[in-house]
Parts: sequence; C-alpha cells; structure tokens
Amino acid sequence: MKENVLSIINENPIDIAKLQAIIAEMNTVDIADTLENLSKEKLVQLFRCLPKSIGGEVFSHMESDEQQVIVEALTDNEIGEIINKMFVDDAVDFIEEMPANVVTQVLRNVDAEKRKLINQMLQYPDDSAGSIMTTEYVDLREDMTVNDAFNYIRETGLNKETIYTSYVIKRDRLLTGVISAKTLMLAGPGDSIGTIMDTNIVYVNTTDDQEMIAGLFKKYGFLSMPVVDKERRLVGIITVDDIVEIIEEEATEDFEKMAALRPSDDPYLKTSIFKHAKNRIVWLLVLMLSATITGSIIAGFEDALAALPILVVFIPMLMDTGGNAGAQSSTLIIRGIALGEVDTGDIFRVFWKEIRIGLICGLILGVINFARIYFMQGKDLFLSVTVTLSVLATIITAKSVGCILPILAKKLRVDPAIMAAPIITTLVDAASLAIYFNIARAIFKI
Amino acid sequence: MKENVLSIINENPIDIAKLQAIIAEMNTVDIADTLENLSKEKLVQLFRCLPKSIGGEVFSHMESDEQQVIVEALTDNEIGEIINKMFVDDAVDFIEEMPANVVTQVLRNVDAEKRKLINQMLQYPDDSAGSIMTTEYVDLREDMTVNDAFNYIRETGLNKETIYTSYVIKRDRLLTGVISAKTLMLAGPGDSIGTIMDTNIVYVNTTDDQEMIAGLFKKYGFLSMPVVDKERRLVGIITVDDIVEIIEEEATEDFEKMAALRPSDDPYLKTSIFKHAKNRIVWLLVLMLSATITGSIIAGFEDALAALPILVVFIPMLMDTGGNAGAQSSTLIIRGIALGEVDTGDIFRVFWKEIRIGLICGLILGVINFARIYFMQGKDLFLSVTVTLSVLATIITAKSVGCILPILAKKLRVDPAIMAAPIITTLVDAASLAIYFNIARAIFKI
Repeated sequence: MKENVLSIINENPIDIAKLQAIIAEMNTVDIADTLENLSKEKLVQLFRCLPKSIGGEVFSHMESDEQQVIVEALTDNEIGEIINKMFVDDAVDFIEEMPANVVTQVLRNVDAEKRKLINQMLQYPDDSAGSIMTTEYVDLREDMTVNDAFNYIRETGLNKETIYTSYVIKRDRLLTGVISAKTLMLAGPGDSIGTIMDTNIVYVNTTDDQEMIAGLFKKYGFLSMPVVDKERRLVGIITVDDIVEIIEEEATEDFEKMAALRPSDDPYLKTSIFKHAKNRIVWLLVLMLSATITGSIIAGFEDALAALPILVVFIPMLMDTGGNAGAQSSTLIIRGIALGEVDTGDIFRVFWKEIRIGLICGLILGVINFARIYFMQGKDLFLSVTVTLSVLATIITAKSVGCILPILAKKLRVDPAIMAAPIITTLVDAASLAIYFNIARAIFKI
Repeated sequence: MKENVLSIINENPIDIAKLQAIIAEMNTVDIADTLENLSKEKLVQLFRCLPKSIGGEVFSHMESDEQQVIVEALTDNEIGEIINKMFVDDAVDFIEEMPANVVTQVLRNVDAEKRKLINQMLQYPDDSAGSIMTTEYVDLREDMTVNDAFNYIRETGLNKETIYTSYVIKRDRLLTGVISAKTLMLAGPGDSIGTIMDTNIVYVNTTDDQEMIAGLFKKYGFLSMPVVDKERRLVGIITVDDIVEIIEEEATEDFEKMAALRPSDDPYLKTSIFKHAKNRIVWLLVLMLSATITGSIIAGFEDALAALPILVVFIPMLMDTGGNAGAQSSTLIIRGIALGEVDTGDIFRVFWKEIRIGLICGLILGVINFARIYFMQGKDLFLSVTVTLSVLATIITAKSVGCILPILAKKLRVDPAIMAAPIITTLVDAASLAIYFNIARAIFKI
C-alpha cells in the first residue's frame, strides 16, 4: 500500500481520487509511516489530501519533526481543526516537542475548553500519572440502567479513548466504581449501574510515578486505569497502549544509566553529536578520575613490581574478570529490584547467595588459571598460586560489591541502576589490585 | 484486605463465612498475592475455601511453586475442574513449569478437547506466537447481523479472554475480517457484519517471534491480535496483557546478555546457586582467557616498562576509560536496534557520528588528564603528552568498536546484545594498551 501511495504522489498531477481510495483502506498508523521521510512539500501536500475525519489521528502518530513541518504550513483554522480532534494526551505530547512560537500558535487556535485541559496537563511533573493520562473517558452515574449506559456510550463514545471500561462517579466527580463493557454486555438492560459496578477500584493519583503505574497494569492486566486528584475526584484515565511505551522507555532509561550515560528520550540518530557528548562526558570524567586511584594503588607497590615485573602481565585479566563478575551480579540485582523480585529486605539472603556463587565461579576460574600458568609459564608454583588466589578473592569481592551496592542505593532512595558495571568495575579494580599485590608480597616475601 | 484474610486463617477453627465475604470483594490477583508465602497446609486450606467460580482464575495468577503444592494436594476431580476453567494459554504456562509426573496427572484429568489444545500449544517453539496465544476468542460470520453478533457474544463471551475484538471467519476458519466491540456498539442492530468489519487485518503466524509481535502491538496500539496458520486459518489470539510481560521479558534478556550472563526466566531469589554459577561461568571463562591476550601485549613491552616503570600507573585509567566509552556507544546502538531506531543501513552514519563524539569526549578528557599529570606529576611534559594522546586515541577506538560491532552482529543475524560492554571492554583494553605503549615508545624513544 505504502508503495502505491508513494508512486501516486510522485505523479504530476496527483490522482487524488485514487489516492483517497487507497488511504481509506489503510490503518492510520501506516498512513503516518508513509508520510515519514517525504520532502516537506510532498508531506504537506499528502497530509492535505487526507479525509478530515482521520487527519487528527494520523497527525498524532507522526514524528515530531514532521508534525512541526505540517503545523508551520497550515492555516490557523486547519491547525485548530486537527488539534481539536486529537486526544488530550496526544495533543500534550505533541505540544511538549514544539518550539515556543509554534506552541503559542497552536494554543491560540484550540477550543477554550481543550486549551484549559492542555494547559493543566502541561503542568504535571514529567513521568507522573497526570502527564500521561487523557481526559476522554466514559463516565456513568450509579442511578443509570444498563440500557441508559449503552445509549450514553453510543452517543458520546466515538470520541473516547476507550469505551471498554466506564467510570462511575457521583456529585463532584467523586469516583465510586468501575464497570467493564463486558459486564454491561452480559447484564440485563434494566439492571442499575450502582448494583453491578465494581467498587473495589484500583486507582492512581495525578502525582504517582509512571513506573509504579506500569507495575500495576502488569500485575492486574488492566486495559485502563482511573486517575484521581487529592480529593479522589476523577480527572483522567491511563490506557494500556501508553503503558507499553512507558515500559520500554523505563527499560531504555535503565540501560542508559547502567552504561554511565545520562538518560535521554531522543532517538540516537536524531541527537546531535554535541548532545551525545554532553550525555556521556560527565560519567566518563568521574570514572576516569576514580580510576586514577587504582593507578596510585599500583604506584604503592612499585617495589614488588620492580622485583617481579611479570606481575604486571596479569593485571588486565584480573581487572576484566573482576569487572565482569561484578557486572553480572549488579545487573541481576538491579533488574530484580526493577521487576519487584528483589527488595531491600533481601539484602542478607542476596549477599549470602552471591558469596557462594562467587566461591563456585572463583574456584573454577582459579583452577583453570592455575593450570594455564603453571604449565605455560615455566612451572612457576609461587606465581601460579598467587594469581589463582587473586582470581578467587577478586571474584568473591566483585560479587559481594556488585550485589550490595544496588540494594543500598535502593535503601537510600537513589536509583539502583546507577550502581551498575561502570562504578562496580572501578571499585572492584582497586580492590582486586590491592588483593593481588598483597598476596604476591606475602607469597614471594617481597 | 490481605491482613484481614491472614488473621482469619490463623484462627482455629477458621470462620469460613467471614473469609468468603472478604474474598468476594477482592481482585483475583490480590487473592493470589495473599496466598503467597503461606505454609503448604494453610495454602491448600485457603485455596479450598475459594468459591469454585474464581478458583481457576486465582490459580492462574499464582507462582508455579504454589501451583505445584496445590495440585499435589488436590483430588483428580478438583484438578480437572480448575484446569478446565483456566484459559488455554495460562494452562500451558502452568504445565510448562511442572515436573513430568504432575503434567501426566493434570492432563489425565482435563477435558479431551482442552487436552488436545494444550498438547498442540506445548509443541510450538518457545517465544513463538503459537506458544503465547490463547484459543478463547469470539468468532463471527460475515452473514450475521450486529444483533446476532451481540446475542452470540452474550451467550459465549463469559469464557473468552477478550470480547472487545471479534474475528470474522468463513468456511475452514479462514480469517476474513476483524471488528471491534466499539464498532458493534456504534452500528445499527440490523447491519451485517460483512459490511462493517475491517478487512485490512494485521495478523501474525504461529511461528512468528514474540519480540516482533510486541513491536506490532506497540506500533498499532492493539488490544489483541489474531494468529493464523500457514493457510491463514484462525487458530488463536494474543492479548495485550501478555505483551506487557513479553516486553519486560525481552528487556531482561537483553540486560542479561549485555552483562555476559546466559539469559534465564527464573526470578533471582528462586534460582539455585549452582544454576546461577552455570549461567555466569561460561562468559567469565571466555572473557578471562581473552584478557590474557591483553596481558601478553603488556609482556611484549617489557623493555619499555623496565625503562619507564611509571607507565604502569596509567594502565587502569586507560583500560577503564576505554571500557566505559565503548560500553556507552554499544549500549546506545544495541538499544537503538532493539527499538527499531537504528538499522544496519545506518552503519556509516553511526560510525561517523561516533568518531566525532569520540573526538569531543577524547579531547576534553585528554586535556584534563594533561593538566592533572603535568601539574601533579612533576611537570613531566613527555609523560603528560603520552597519556593525553593515549586517552584520545583510546576513546575514539572504543567508540568506533562499540558502535560497529552490534551493527555487524545484526547483519550476521547474531543478537546485537552479545556485543556489549564485556566483549567491547576486552577488545578495547588490548587496543588501548597497544596504542599506549607504542605512543610511549615513539615519544620517549625507548
């Protein structure tokens, strides 16, 4: 379909009837996809060919660069028409990405009521329930019958983000119950909403964090969830399609933090090299300066190194093995905390587990190292024993540090994802070299 | 509520009427939660108090250890009743976690038809559409009216996993259209399904991979999606609640692969230390042996080190900085590929971007290093220049290797997540030390 559309708009003049016939058969997401990577001119031209009824929907699926191109080319009237047809949450997402002059132009052309809602939602903190909710939901009253409810949904449902869960409110929009379309469909037409609604409601507050909310969706398998203010008045709903995106966003944030990057929502290719460098330089600098401490540990053992220069050959192996062993543990614990499988109360259980795992891994790697060094490095028993013991001690240290730090971070209300490979490696490097040279001194009596 | 339940079942004798009154108000997910961490005896006792109508649902939300305890305590009849009430996908998930003797006992007590479905689904490859789909969906015919459809849904809908999307089939179960409950509710009662259904269907095959399917859900914001066989016959559906779990599962798998762990679905605390060690040892060993190559590079510069022992002090800083810089790049690219933001065709664009980012970061870190070494290490200009140039070259190398390898992996149809920090670090370590000693030799003429 995409190919057909592209071939038609490259003809001159464009066969609009043919184009609209194809577009009518397409999903709005695919239409938005087709608009990507067109020239500015073609983009605006094609967008104007869209039936008015789907313009808002297609617009909300587009990338923000393309949205901006279109908004800048449209008349005030056309802009108003599009934004008024978008769901409030999509409109807010769009406005947040636009430069100030576009925002002013857009808000000027939106219905007064919608403008008020948009302005309200722009004020909620990033990543809070308020900033991801939408205000298009079906609200019922307890004294309605099922039949009333159906009529009400048929009248107003077309512009609601979901009609599959309705929210029951009383005066002052106080939330008193929820009812699924399934319950409505299976109930008798005369049943009253108040008697068949579910009063055991799981709801969130406007200020609740999106990661916690995603956890609730995952736990209960909801399709949508109500958002209330401090007085438990219904102000919006969150739908599962946004949650799918949030889960990926939160995972990306953790991936980035765990690789010593400042988290960023921008796609890789659309971020400038200066912004990329800015996101990377701070951690690189902090970790580089920390690693000089490790260097000074080596400097402290200058005498040992002078007496036994071969010791330096095993430094990279010890540092890398310690770093890898620590990264394994910290990754498992950070992810376990994020998924709710590990909690701060498990700290001793985790520690004891990691010590034993470290012992198993350390013994296996130690023995292999011993064999390798003993038989390939001139049957030097002292050297083989030194390296073997160092590997064992390094791995146990790495596993302990790697599992403890993320849990401590969580206890101190710092994001555990910070305590990942880069920091763990820097700490374990220093420890492993100190262990190594001390063992060497003791064994070789230098 | 949970506390109330726990206090009641700790009384002797248990006040069953009171217990059932509380449970009737609870969400089945919360009931399953309450059952967690009870003694085996209490667990079985409490489970038997549940109303028969919700037993299957609560059972499907429980952890597999607890499911096993219950199954082992129930009679054949009771087991049959529970499994027959579970959705096929939940039953399959449960059976996959049970030991062979329990599986035999369970399958013996299930309806013949359900047994056939379960056996079929157990044969689909792990992580394929077939293994995550369920067979409880609403199927309509084109010649039905909207009114017929509603009556059919009311009759059969109670046991369907979702009634919010219906699938239209003709003879041989050939999929011809989809129709949402919203469309049904907004249509006239006499309209025929064939004329109002959507024929532009997005569907997947039984053998399609779950990660790809999750991508489709994210792209289109679906609540469910049809699964067809090779002849395009409808065999099942996938619902969005499973997708939420799959997205987290796939992210966890990537986190683990990127930390040199063999991926595992088991929660951290429920995995034995031997299994943990087994998941970690292979990569630790491979990387340890690779790191000895780096060691032998140092050995090759023995003369330089003997002439200038202070060179060894900067080894940890160079190794760590190179590793961190490489990990940053590889993480961004691996995640970019997973999210579909970066593709193999972008390889030169990415490479050119990373070279320039490496240059910016390398210059900043290099200058800071120069100042630190020059003013704190006795104004040794040659040494300061050596380390500065090495930092710059190391960072540029690390950024290039870190961005290229994941894209190459993708090209070779290997999982890009393998090309993460641990492998990048090992490679960059070797490269950075070679660079460092060669620069030192050139500058100090040793």
